[in-house]
Amino acid sequence: MSTLPIAGSTYDKQLSAAKTFITERDHFLVVAHLHPDGDAAGSTVAVGLLLEQLGKTYVMVNEGSIPRKLAFLPNADDVVNYEEVGLQRKYNSVICIDCADDSRIGDVRDAFTEDAQILNIDHHPTNDGFGSVSLIRTDAAATVEILYDLFQAFELTWNQPLATAIYTGLLTDTGGFRYSNTTPHVMAIAAEMLRLGVDGHELANNLLEKSSFAHILLLKKALSTLTFSDNNRLAWVMVTAADMAETGATNEDFEGIVNYPRNIDGVEVGLLFKETAADTYKVGFRSAGKVDVAQLAKSFGGGGHVRAAGCTLNGTLDDVVTQVTERVRSALQ
Amino acid sequence: MSTLPIAGSTYDKQLSAAKTFITERDHFLVVAHLHPDGDAAGSTVAVGLLLEQLGKTYVMVNEGSIPRKLAFLPNADDVVNYEEVGLQRKYNSVICIDCADDSRIGDVRDAFTEDAQILNIDHHPTNDGFGSVSLIRTDAAATVEILYDLFQAFELTWNQPLATAIYTGLLTDTGGFRYSNTTPHVMAIAAEMLRLGVDGHELANNLLEKSSFAHILLLKKALSTLTFSDNNRLAWVMVTAADMAETGATNEDFEGIVNYPRNIDGVEVGLLFKETAADTYKVGFRSAGKVDVAQLAKSFGGGGHVRAAGCTLNGTLDDVVTQVTERVRSALQ
Repeated sequence: MSTLPIAGSTYDKQLSAAKTFITERDHFLVVAHLHPDGDAAGSTVAVGLLLEQLGKTYVMVNEGSIPRKLAFLPNADDVVNYEEVGLQRKYNSVICIDCADDSRIGDVRDAFTEDAQILNIDHHPTNDGFGSVSLIRTDAAATVEILYDLFQAFELTWNQPLATAIYTGLLTDTGGFRYSNTTPHVMAIAAEMLRLGVDGHELANNLLEKSSFAHILLLKKALSTLTFSDNNRLAWVMVTAADMAETGATNEDFEGIVNYPRNIDGVEVGLLFKETAADTYKVGFRSAGKVDVAQLAKSFGGGGHVRAAGCTLNGTLDDVVTQVTERVRSALQ
Repeated sequence: MSTLPIAGSTYDKQLSAAKTFITERDHFLVVAHLHPDGDAAGSTVAVGLLLEQLGKTYVMVNEGSIPRKLAFLPNADDVVNYEEVGLQRKYNSVICIDCADDSRIGDVRDAFTEDAQILNIDHHPTNDGFGSVSLIRTDAAATVEILYDLFQAFELTWNQPLATAIYTGLLTDTGGFRYSNTTPHVMAIAAEMLRLGVDGHELANNLLEKSSFAHILLLKKALSTLTFSDNNRLAWVMVTAADMAETGATNEDFEGIVNYPRNIDGVEVGLLFKETAADTYKVGFRSAGKVDVAQLAKSFGGGGHVRAAGCTLNGTLDDVVTQVTERVRSALQ
């Protein structure tokens, strides 16, 4: 088993407090952030499997459903969609996963008793420490990475379903072991999970390689608008409201399209203009590294990170494209 | 350091013979297969770094150049393109890497003396055991995985450049840790290489995320021909010779396009029709798992694997598409 990362005594104390929190209670509500992604859903079912091994009772619940592509997760069917099904009672022992603040829990807060005790397990740097006990490591790639540490502290018996849940969170929150959060510790845990029988190929295939029908139709439309300028250092695509309607695309289907222009060899800044209402465009900025697109987006009232940012502008498509590309052009010079 | 996989005494003996081969000689020619990919190029420079540590002299040479996107590899500039530069002398100690048979060495064979001794290091199941000493493990994901074992046997001092070379081979031959050859041992080695300072994010970005300009233009053209049939269980795209010419695409730029139709949710068989000459089409078959496309391709005189196969057909595009899709339709039923 992989050794714990150097985390100092604070983290060890947190681990120990989290262990006590779980040991001393018997009935839990386990909740992750609304519209759960791979790490949130993987973490939820992993905590469920831990509680099962410890002989505890629990309910797993979310605002929003587990995405269809995560339905393979062990016990995924048991995760209650609070919007649709609700809960019959309130809970006073809550394990809250992958939520930077309690607004991320959504309406499920209504299922907490007034004096509910919350164990807050998360990896987001912006976590505000809500709840009674915190288990937060902001340099973890995913919440499942923290759960791995917690499960080691419990000396839990590892098995294939548990390993699948952990691997899913690592895989999705690191973009398939490609983001800069892919530390040696992440890879070492992934190796252990594969050793426990996880089918990494199948998971990568279903979670990262597969496109929805609407996604590929939208990509086709978006690429048909691909435009280059400034010696191919700037490239952009456009998606209209009509494109979204015609392809039946949801925001989930839309994911990833913004990266295509930036990922072209030689392109320094990639843009995506998405019509969200009449004369209203959401602009996605992606940088290959040289241009700080957070600054650019900020100059239009938006924000984000150095390599990925966004803003919303009003005007005709032509006006918006001209405005934004001119400012990118200045930044490129 | 990760432990060696269970390989039995044959592999251990091979390791020991390979070690002796290198120890007993002083001057080497190091060659990988023509038109080297990430594993071939990574292996080549890794062997160079080993020989350097051992105080040996060597020349690295290939038929064809190291692809531009692999130019970051340590000492990549020192790999001679035999076609362009040639060699001044012949060599009688050869380390041959990632070549299933000696035809894969290409014209570089002309630089071997008649009595040349060859150490054949490879992971291809079809390796015919050419050469004097073989170090072959066909369940290795990449040749660099075998080199890792060899370097451990040499008790070599690991460093960041060496780790980068090894990581590159693992990353590219496993499709970014996504193919079924991504074993726990592969992931454990990757974890160690990251610990040695490899920038996994940068490598993934440059080797897997980036598209060439010609690739994206070709993708745009290919997707504009995307056609579905049989309740979206069959999908295909077409690429004409004119498309290739207009976009300036080489075969390298063409890579990956065949996977788009198959990767769509619900699609069981994806096809790509590529015009290679007048009335001549190369057909790429990809299966999501249920249909054995090797059988289909074979029925047209081609071949391949269960999930990836190909054949070449003569006729007009319409004829070829009709012929192939009808046979796929039968297989889907």
